[in-house]
Amino acid sequence: MGLRSDGRAADELRHVRLTPDVLDFAEGSCLVEFGRTRVLCAASVEDRQPPFLRGTQSGWVTGEYAMLPRATHTRSQREVERGRPGGRTQEIQRLIGRSLRAVADMELLGPRTITVDCDVLQADGGTRTASITGAYVALQIAVRKIAATKGISPATVRPAVAAVSVGMVRGVAMLDLCYEEDSTAEVDFNVVMTGTDSFVEVQGTAEREPFSQAGLDELLRLGRKGIGELFAAQEEALGRAAT
Amino acid sequence: MGLRSDGRAADELRHVRLTPDVLDFAEGSCLVEFGRTRVLCAASVEDRQPPFLRGTQSGWVTGEYAMLPRATHTRSQREVERGRPGGRTQEIQRLIGRSLRAVADMELLGPRTITVDCDVLQADGGTRTASITGAYVALQIAVRKIAATKGISPATVRPAVAAVSVGMVRGVAMLDLCYEEDSTAEVDFNVVMTGTDSFVEVQGTAEREPFSQAGLDELLRLGRKGIGELFAAQEEALGRAAT
Amino acid sequence: MGLRSDGRAADELRHVRLTPDVLDFAEGSCLVEFGRTRVLCAASVEDRQPPFLRGTQSGWVTGEYAMLPRATHTRSQREVERGRPGGRTQEIQRLIGRSLRAVADMELLGPRTITVDCDVLQADGGTRTASITGAYVALQIAVRKIAATKGISPATVRPAVAAVSVGMVRGVAMLDLCYEEDSTAEVDFNVVMTGTDSFVEVQGTAEREPFSQAGLDELLRLGRKGIGELFAAQEEALGRAAT
Amino acid sequence: MGLRSDGRAADELRHVRLTPDVLDFAEGSCLVEFGRTRVLCAASVEDRQPPFLRGTQSGWVTGEYAMLPRATHTRSQREVERGRPGGRTQEIQRLIGRSLRAVADMELLGPRTITVDCDVLQADGGTRTASITGAYVALQIAVRKIAATKGISPATVRPAVAAVSVGMVRGVAMLDLCYEEDSTAEVDFNVVMTGTDSFVEVQGTAEREPFSQAGLDELLRLGRKGIGELFAAQEEALGRAAT
Amino acid sequence: MGLRSDGRAADELRHVRLTPDVLDFAEGSCLVEFGRTRVLCAASVEDRQPPFLRGTQSGWVTGEYAMLPRATHTRSQREVERGRPGGRTQEIQRLIGRSLRAVADMELLGPRTITVDCDVLQADGGTRTASITGAYVALQIAVRKIAATKGISPATVRPAVAAVSVGMVRGVAMLDLCYEEDSTAEVDFNVVMTGTDSFVEVQGTAEREPFSQAGLDELLRLGRKGIGELFAAQEEALGRAAT
Amino acid sequence: MGLRSDGRAADELRHVRLTPDVLDFAEGSCLVEFGRTRVLCAASVEDRQPPFLRGTQSGWVTGEYAMLPRATHTRSQREVERGRPGGRTQEIQRLIGRSLRAVADMELLGPRTITVDCDVLQADGGTRTASITGAYVALQIAVRKIAATKGISPATVRPAVAAVSVGMVRGVAMLDLCYEEDSTAEVDFNVVMTGTDSFVEVQGTAEREPFSQAGLDELLRLGRKGIGELFAAQEEALGRAAT
Repeated sequence: MGLRSDGRAADELRHVRLTPDVLDFAEGSCLVEFGRTRVLCAASVEDRQPPFLRGTQSGWVTGEYAMLPRATHTRSQREVERGRPGGRTQEIQRLIGRSLRAVADMELLGPRTITVDCDVLQADGGTRTASITGAYVALQIAVRKIAATKGISPATVRPAVAAVSVGMVRGVAMLDLCYEEDSTAEVDFNVVMTGTDSFVEVQGTAEREPFSQAGLDELLRLGRKGIGELFAAQEEALGRAAT
Repeated sequence: MGLRSDGRAADELRHVRLTPDVLDFAEGSCLVEFGRTRVLCAASVEDRQPPFLRGTQSGWVTGEYAMLPRATHTRSQREVERGRPGGRTQEIQRLIGRSLRAVADMELLGPRTITVDCDVLQADGGTRTASITGAYVALQIAVRKIAATKGISPATVRPAVAAVSVGMVRGVAMLDLCYEEDSTAEVDFNVVMTGTDSFVEVQGTAEREPFSQAGLDELLRLGRKGIGELFAAQEEALGRAAT
Repeated sequence: MGLRSDGRAADELRHVRLTPDVLDFAEGSCLVEFGRTRVLCAASVEDRQPPFLRGTQSGWVTGEYAMLPRATHTRSQREVERGRPGGRTQEIQRLIGRSLRAVADMELLGPRTITVDCDVLQADGGTRTASITGAYVALQIAVRKIAATKGISPATVRPAVAAVSVGMVRGVAMLDLCYEEDSTAEVDFNVVMTGTDSFVEVQGTAEREPFSQAGLDELLRLGRKGIGELFAAQEEALGRAAT
Repeated sequence: MGLRSDGRAADELRHVRLTPDVLDFAEGSCLVEFGRTRVLCAASVEDRQPPFLRGTQSGWVTGEYAMLPRATHTRSQREVERGRPGGRTQEIQRLIGRSLRAVADMELLGPRTITVDCDVLQADGGTRTASITGAYVALQIAVRKIAATKGISPATVRPAVAAVSVGMVRGVAMLDLCYEEDSTAEVDFNVVMTGTDSFVEVQGTAEREPFSQAGLDELLRLGRKGIGELFAAQEEALGRAAT
Repeated sequence: MGLRSDGRAADELRHVRLTPDVLDFAEGSCLVEFGRTRVLCAASVEDRQPPFLRGTQSGWVTGEYAMLPRATHTRSQREVERGRPGGRTQEIQRLIGRSLRAVADMELLGPRTITVDCDVLQADGGTRTASITGAYVALQIAVRKIAATKGISPATVRPAVAAVSVGMVRGVAMLDLCYEEDSTAEVDFNVVMTGTDSFVEVQGTAEREPFSQAGLDELLRLGRKGIGELFAAQEEALGRAAT
Repeated sequence: MGLRSDGRAADELRHVRLTPDVLDFAEGSCLVEFGRTRVLCAASVEDRQPPFLRGTQSGWVTGEYAMLPRATHTRSQREVERGRPGGRTQEIQRLIGRSLRAVADMELLGPRTITVDCDVLQADGGTRTASITGAYVALQIAVRKIAATKGISPATVRPAVAAVSVGMVRGVAMLDLCYEEDSTAEVDFNVVMTGTDSFVEVQGTAEREPFSQAGLDELLRLGRKGIGELFAAQEEALGRAAT
């Protein structure tokens, strides 16, 4: 029997599938799957600015994130029943937004808001990294559509931004943790990078055991490898998109 | 050019598709499509009773309903951002719950709760009737699964319950309104029926023009026709389900 | 001993009393009593439009509904303590509003909002139907007052709209259920009609037993009879009103 | 023309009316009117203790307060729509509760809670003092009822507690201010006293002009006079009550 | 052993310390200590008016109040976790605001808002009276600062406003109750006065035993004595302030 | 003129001051100052477990965080007025809790909860890192106190945990950013480390410009240097603490 429950090598991504154009009404959409994790990403373009940009010619790109109640192994209560998005949800939403803005030019976008909704249909670990990876595809499709219809520059969103999780599980550095691995990991990293081989975010947390500088270096190396593969999958999916 | 924007006859359903077993973790699941309306139904079985049944051996079946923000033609704000489910959401949730309980035997179910989550991925009219129709399939699959593993009676949920909308549009009684028809209808009915040709719910509202007894009779006749066809589609889908 | 706990015939309304002009400050008011059910209806006219009518010359008519905590046999918690109106409250509010708008001409009303507050002082079944019946009287009085002072047309609200409950109790179709009957009914209908013998709303729910087409027909017949008697009571009350 | 808009003398109460037994279901009830101010007081007895008394044999008496939206000259939004009771509402509720507890013996009451709901049907100044005055009557009736049925001591609530407002209006000390007087008063006092000529609460606020010791003395003298008259009215009303 | 747990005479204040200028960014600030009670008062000047003053040249002065969770002997939950300020908090905030406005001239202030935040770092009784006493110092410092920089009149805030608690403890009238005394007092008064020997607020509550006119007179006498001493401490602190 | 507005070298901390035992009631307390940033840390020990530990012998350590409204250069609205802690607050609270738990042994603590409240009195950048650094001191003092009184092991909290911010400002890596530097930084890192030279958290965000592996390495090196100095300051403060 192998190292990981699903037989993957330590530095191997789960099966990644990016399906563009899955919705009829959204300006851009993409269903992203990292193994059994499935997130529906929908990009909506609106001709309005957030209040803090009034009086400028800039636009804004933001993300929202939620899980269906039975995305998980056991059912969770809807956040609306608790009256507000939880801290984890808000943290992920802000991460998605920052990641997308790292490749978007707000001046070229003009006085518009693009919101990318990332709704998790099924959750098996890595929902935030799958969300960022799929949200980029939905965003890029939406921009191409308005590039065609509203004359904005197709360079508004640069290639590309993607994210992956890495972690130390039983002392071994592993790429793209599934839920079971994630819940037993000693150290858990989320890495977001752009097409220029630069970092947008590095978030590393010792869940059980503080980690050394050497461990940190090893995990980041793995993350860069995985993100390179995600860039290729994104490009291939965009090639299949209608617009 | 025909009577309806999509070329259907007045008494014709949209293309109906029921896909069972679309989720890996939920005890029962079904993706239901009425034309472009798409609802993901997930049935979760929990070994707990709601507070008002404590001390009895009865179970409970309930429904929850929500729309993804970009299910609709233009994006809507998430309900969680407003701090509570709107009145419309609560009304639909209660309708789904009542409809499912009309075919479920709470004594046979035993001290368990089954929650069927109906999450609208795309909305083009008839989301509540599609939800009820798909929720029945998810519920029946979940009951079969626990019938096998926990020894409850497979008769716990009787065949069948389904729902459809009917309405007066420009003076003509029509079956299964799409969004565009619904928004211009003079009268709007939702009809829920069981496999014994009986009504569970009849909700008729004059949106523009009060309606006569004769109009009401004509609309209910159409509704019964459509629901008969939905029963057949449910049965066929259950035949394809794994359990 | 008779069929019903209070000795009424199956097709007999409870004692109905409509007392106009019970408040000093409201533009229109009416205390409505269906037996021991007592609702204070107050119509308020404001020179403002709801946001969705800005830029038009139309007005709006809406209803609000609440129960005092000790309206019922045992005390209920105030909704404000739970932080929001419950689903049942919102459902009833929307029904009252739709019913009143079915007889009101929004163009003749002009850029005004009339809110009819229906506050249940005592609840013994049928609070929503009593509310609609009394709210019409309060609304009509308010319109007459502003017809006199602000020169709007007295035809702004057409005669009349009223509502009654009907239900199957132990297999018998009964008119105007009191709380005890309502809580044991197999089927529960609320019927709202206008003075032109047309339906505004038909809401029928099988609480215990799905119902047949024949049962539905019988219940609607009873409802039409009761509503006819309510129209007479409304007209008589309006004759007694000051304006 | 006299000193006050309604022709009263400076030391004269408005017309006071206390109508006991106005509700069918509440254990005790009283409609209190101070001129056009009208408050419906309903006392509910429940066989439960608040959490902080668990494990003792003591009971609790508390009050709740609300205004109907059109109690006032212009309509106010319902507090439930804002999601919580306002600061003013909570302040008044706590005052009513403290006032009632000043004459109630929690040991004699035993492990029960009595909640007196004070719902303002019409507001023309003095709603909190009218509430306390009427709440005492509703509470006393409820105690008599459970004295008869549950064998608690009729001495559980001692005679009596009542309240009145006094204020400086254009330099003159006046008793029982109506809304118009209250809104122009320089100083506004609420005084709550028991049947033993003692104070439960003295709340005096300079709305426009700080006040001297002499002014304070004069206002309290007026308040004691008015409260003496309210005690007589309460006793007379209790003589008319059914129990 | 003496009368009071900390050895004070019945008419003696706790050790009072007013430290001005404790914050770097606030326009005015003062740390006030009444014994172990410690409140940080910060006055913020903003060039905006509250909505109800729009269109006038008037300003507004208001207060906010909160306790740190471990200000008290045992930890309390943060109010934000309960979703709203409690009734007690709102009552105190309104008292602070009214007290400060009694010595502030809104016309001289001009179209500005000054908010004085009173945050209780440690609570040992008398937090509201300490807040008012310290808030006056912070407010006066802020006004001097804007008198210098924005040319408003230094007479905008008149000397002075201060507050103290008094109460009956085991039958003895005492000045400036600490927490232990306050929690066993029969009667609890808060007195707010201005430099002109006039009352702004008198709030007296019988916690256990109604009080007589004579008791009231004695308590107010004590309060006036204590407030005189607080005026001196305020003046001395203002002398030490930088501006 | 130097590189930084306050004349510091790029790798120099602001003036750090840790004052233990500043509160009378909290089991442990520490006022921490990083330059003008000032945070009051209070550790409260309670003999209760969070729900998810019921039935075990484990304890829990958690943190809460808030800012006074005038901690900042301009006044901010209290979070309680918005009805809930913002996303940023929740994110910081969870970071403080995780950091403290990295050095606490939940088994040795036993069935208790220690909450460390970090309330920011003044904010000039680095409030979350100052909070963690001061919270450790308050926690350690509280543990020593209960070690003495309740017989738990003094080894319950291991030395030590501290945090610091680092960032790229105009292309230069700098240690311990003040507000002005933080708001113009291209890259912003928060680093949390334990006394064993291991990382608990690394959170790096590109605010303006994605960053390279080399930049990341340089920033972490600076962070380790600063944290070493903070460990020394913590140890010195604990030496001065009463217990």
